[in-house]
Amino acid sequence: MKPTHIEHIGIAVENIEKAIEFYENTFGLKCYAIEEVKDQKVKTAFFMVGQTKIELLESTDPEGPIGKFIEKKGEGIHHIAFAVKGIEEKLPELEKKGVRLIDANPRKGAEGLDIAFLHPKSTFGVLTEICENKNNK
Amino acid sequence: MKPTHIEHIGIAVENIEKAIEFYENTFGLKCYAIEEVKDQKVKTAFFMVGQTKIELLESTDPEGPIGKFIEKKGEGIHHIAFAVKGIEEKLPELEKKGVRLIDANPRKGAEGLDIAFLHPKSTFGVLTEICENKNNK
Repeated sequence: MKPTHIEHIGIAVENIEKAIEFYENTFGLKCYAIEEVKDQKVKTAFFMVGQTKIELLESTDPEGPIGKFIEKKGEGIHHIAFAVKGIEEKLPELEKKGVRLIDANPRKGAEGLDIAFLHPKSTFGVLTEICENKNNK
Repeated sequence: MKPTHIEHIGIAVENIEKAIEFYENTFGLKCYAIEEVKDQKVKTAFFMVGQTKIELLESTDPEGPIGKFIEKKGEGIHHIAFAVKGIEEKLPELEKKGVRLIDANPRKGAEGLDIAFLHPKSTFGVLTEICENKNNK
């Protein structure tokens, strides 16, 4: 699929306010956006680090994917997102190569991106997202 | 500390040859280097994705840090590395702000980088590395 760059790294946290304070005051990064993604039952906070964003994720519902992740594994890195061009064609291409898709079709994620998740069982344990920013076209 | 970019994302895998094949054939990335880091008891493989590297890590010893990680958590994302300038000064600065250091002083990592790890207990569950490339100076 040849991704162009790492679009973001998703990090599951219990308390996003505390985590934002840490990333700002200790790591010297600037939170430029906070957004709730109701569909995913998360509140997100974004920081730019070069080409890549750190996306902090706090669950708004214990039954949501981040709530379950933290219950099972604790806080930590949740997923990596690769930026691609032509996401609609990339998904069937990946499926043909044996990748199990969580999202057979792209859906809207944070920041208006078109996103789709691949199942970690078929990507060596890494929850992988592919995404495309069509906002600037 | 204001990192300039994400230098790499470390991913623990059981079989680096199979994982390299997957990243090349399925994700369309090119493995440009394979290196053993004896000190860390790992074999590493690198792929460039924009500004950031994917660093696959296979343990060469079940008692090494990657061997133990996989035993406990399975394959998956192991750490994030932020590129910084002046790593020697960043470490005491982070410690003063309450970050627990795994490496109080930088040591040599893969690709000749100066690296140091921060303890995930003080970084919201994320095993965080800071590193500096002094090779090109």
